[in-house]
Amino acid sequence: MEKTKDQELKLLLKQFDKHYEKTKALNYVMNVASFDAQTIAPKNDGAVNERSEAMGFWALEDFKHQNDPTYDRLISDLQSQLADLTPEMKRIVFLERKKIDQLKKIDPKDYQDYAVLLSQAQVAWEKAKANDNFDAYAPYLEKILFYVRKFATLTKTVAGPLYNQLLDDYEEGNTIEKLDAFFATLKARIVPLLKKIQQSKVKIRMDFMSRKFPKHEQLAYAKSLLTFIGYDLNAGVLAESVHPFSSEITPSDVRVTTHIYEDNFISNIYSTAHEGGHGIYEQNIGPKVKGTILGHGAAMSIHESQSRFYENVLGRSYAFTEMVFPELKKQFKDQFKDVTLAEYYQAINEAKASLIRTESDELTYSLHIMVRYELEKRLIEGSLKVKDLPTAWNELYQSYLGIKPKNDRTGCLQDVHWSGGAFGYFPSYALGNAISIQLLKTMEKTLSLEKTIKSKDLIPIRDWFTKHVYVYGKLYPPFVLLKKVTGEDLNPSYYCDYLEEKFSKIYKI
Amino acid sequence: MEKTKDQELKLLLKQFDKHYEKTKALNYVMNVASFDAQTIAPKNDGAVNERSEAMGFWALEDFKHQNDPTYDRLISDLQSQLADLTPEMKRIVFLERKKIDQLKKIDPKDYQDYAVLLSQAQVAWEKAKANDNFDAYAPYLEKILFYVRKFATLTKTVAGPLYNQLLDDYEEGNTIEKLDAFFATLKARIVPLLKKIQQSKVKIRMDFMSRKFPKHEQLAYAKSLLTFIGYDLNAGVLAESVHPFSSEITPSDVRVTTHIYEDNFISNIYSTAHEGGHGIYEQNIGPKVKGTILGHGAAMSIHESQSRFYENVLGRSYAFTEMVFPELKKQFKDQFKDVTLAEYYQAINEAKASLIRTESDELTYSLHIMVRYELEKRLIEGSLKVKDLPTAWNELYQSYLGIKPKNDRTGCLQDVHWSGGAFGYFPSYALGNAISIQLLKTMEKTLSLEKTIKSKDLIPIRDWFTKHVYVYGKLYPPFVLLKKVTGEDLNPSYYCDYLEEKFSKIYKI
Repeated sequence: MEKTKDQELKLLLKQFDKHYEKTKALNYVMNVASFDAQTIAPKNDGAVNERSEAMGFWALEDFKHQNDPTYDRLISDLQSQLADLTPEMKRIVFLERKKIDQLKKIDPKDYQDYAVLLSQAQVAWEKAKANDNFDAYAPYLEKILFYVRKFATLTKTVAGPLYNQLLDDYEEGNTIEKLDAFFATLKARIVPLLKKIQQSKVKIRMDFMSRKFPKHEQLAYAKSLLTFIGYDLNAGVLAESVHPFSSEITPSDVRVTTHIYEDNFISNIYSTAHEGGHGIYEQNIGPKVKGTILGHGAAMSIHESQSRFYENVLGRSYAFTEMVFPELKKQFKDQFKDVTLAEYYQAINEAKASLIRTESDELTYSLHIMVRYELEKRLIEGSLKVKDLPTAWNELYQSYLGIKPKNDRTGCLQDVHWSGGAFGYFPSYALGNAISIQLLKTMEKTLSLEKTIKSKDLIPIRDWFTKHVYVYGKLYPPFVLLKKVTGEDLNPSYYCDYLEEKFSKIYKI
Repeated sequence: MEKTKDQELKLLLKQFDKHYEKTKALNYVMNVASFDAQTIAPKNDGAVNERSEAMGFWALEDFKHQNDPTYDRLISDLQSQLADLTPEMKRIVFLERKKIDQLKKIDPKDYQDYAVLLSQAQVAWEKAKANDNFDAYAPYLEKILFYVRKFATLTKTVAGPLYNQLLDDYEEGNTIEKLDAFFATLKARIVPLLKKIQQSKVKIRMDFMSRKFPKHEQLAYAKSLLTFIGYDLNAGVLAESVHPFSSEITPSDVRVTTHIYEDNFISNIYSTAHEGGHGIYEQNIGPKVKGTILGHGAAMSIHESQSRFYENVLGRSYAFTEMVFPELKKQFKDQFKDVTLAEYYQAINEAKASLIRTESDELTYSLHIMVRYELEKRLIEGSLKVKDLPTAWNELYQSYLGIKPKNDRTGCLQDVHWSGGAFGYFPSYALGNAISIQLLKTMEKTLSLEKTIKSKDLIPIRDWFTKHVYVYGKLYPPFVLLKKVTGEDLNPSYYCDYLEEKFSKIYKI
């Protein structure tokens, strides 16, 4: 009897592997094609249409594959033998059940209409942004919101308001309650800090930041930086794209991109460090989960904690700057000939209320997110109408950052996310910032960041994160993992302390 | 009655389009993944295995898709309505019928075993070449020959010896009879020409050819060269790869690659011109066939005629050299400061018996092909045993080129083709050389190559080829197309005249 059950389980697991073989094959080609499209692929209309058509075919094929009734039954059969599964397989079955249940509830017709809408909305958004014409874009956003609400209603499993479902979709266990408390702390401490900075007498020299750095020299520097922070170029690629991103093509092929501006060298350095952080995470997933459904970062917040760590916490620290600046001065003699370390450190840490999230600094970044969180919460619950979005956006910028966009192009039309239906995703950026510091506090109990940087060997940092975070992949939900590592629930006060300490020093306040 | 037949045909064509939709989707991802693998993808074992596994999945999927019994019946149904089809659709039905009939005759088990063998043979060949150990490789070559002969026997439709089938597979209408006559002419005229050159007193200065040219400057030059010869960078990409190649990703995305050696700048220039020729061909397929099964170059020989044309006939001509050299001297001041136009022209046209095909010059290239043609003909007919291949190879090099390889690494182990099962493919390289000149002769009846080059606008050349060759895609078999354009069957005497004239001048013989 026992043996029969054992054999049955083996058969089920074999069927599961068979299904996953096609999933992997689909993932590989969709990943590599998407990477190609975002990096070197030609942009002429014909080429764009031809590859969109092909990718549409595979997206539909993937939908069918994930939503296959046979697979649905297979997952149910595995659920009935849950006690005999490994912890990893239990988690996979849980995640797959959740995904299938969501997919099943969505009418394929709706799914297809929504996909068409999103591709039209993308174009409409680009045009509306270029022409600063929110009214032309508003009908698309309204339709997207209709579908987002419809899907969230159909698939709702978490308690509370509808927006909770969207938050949970991106960040398992995330809720309005959590975020309201989180952002309240940030608001109470960052907004006054920014006001004080704005009154500081410290003048930061920025003239040398727009000096010309040749593209091929910047690329070479980016590669050496990646290697230095612990990204493995033999298991990845550094490429160029309009918007920097990272992408796991296959488990042993995790890529990052940067964008080179010859008159803004710092953009490349910190894009590279940021994407490098994402890449380092994916490159160091543990052997028990690597190559499986769990073989990725735990969630967007934890992922962003790593990119922000390498970009800001490490990359914009005084210790790191002090260590790399002599090398920079040697490699870029002309550009830095009249620049001191203190000037350079200040320049890369200038904190300033600005309008564009992606160009904002370490201090103000989370304020930009707070604006979006407030607005999408209201849009989803229906208390904010799309037509009133620009006004509401501008008011919140005034209130949190003390400045007001002069147009919608630099206001509520700046981000692509909502045009892609991504409601509930923005908060993870701010969570990532806070989590990076909460993890640092735990790390520093046994490993000093400053001392490690001074030793010029950053690998112990990567190894610490590997041991405590990366190794698990998606085995634990993000807040569970955070508690497991730090012994605490999400606690943004560490992040606020960090910002206050760092920027008070720089701005002498 | 008539209407019913019409409706039936419409339905068949709709089904055909449906099948082709998946073909296109498969082609796109296989093309883009292969391009990626050959250019930037990381080379670590894990990444190689992961993507090989995924691509194996899609290769099998493609095999099933092309060999689908429903598709087989569909093509038969279309054959029954042949009279009502467009000329393009008639040709497509003919080619698809031929392909399906071949695929059907092969046992899937054999197909799979053969695929495994080829991937093992690839590795065995790399090792054997590195260690100069032919004996270790011989068993693989024997097994490959076994399958190649088996498949050719099973699928044989053309008359005469078995090797005819392999020739026809790569080059519709190609036969031993044609090639024997073709190579006899080449042998009779190129071998004595080379002997005369070897006795020439002309000394060609080569010292400056290994001066250092920075990589990023070479890449920029390659891009300007591509644009100048008429390749459209907006509908393509120039990338780097170990072995230069060209690849049609989708009809409006036709890419080329080059390889940069900082101490051999000429390699990049002529790889770029060569692959650019292939790319220009694919970029200018006519609208009636673009995006269909006929939307590619007519055959390997015609394709190679274009790459060789842009590389040699145009790129190594005196007129072209005279025109670009002042620009080169301006861009690479230091490297060319003591070099004259005459010296540069001679250096890029040095003719010399050498051992490696891929590094051989314009004059001797076809002799390298002749060796391979003779040998594979004998290997297929069985008059040459694999174990005797090295001796036979060395004897033919002695006889045609007057030099003998000292080892098999620079002898019969140099090319990858046979390890991939490609028997019957080599001759197309030599055919391409001869066809490039036969086409030139026709072109020059209305358009002077020299005058066009001197006008500094090469687009009329591309337009001539587009109008007479590119526009048709695969609508005609290669020798039919050649006759249609030039009014003549294959005639290698033009090619021999051209070589004699050009190299007699350079070597004053």
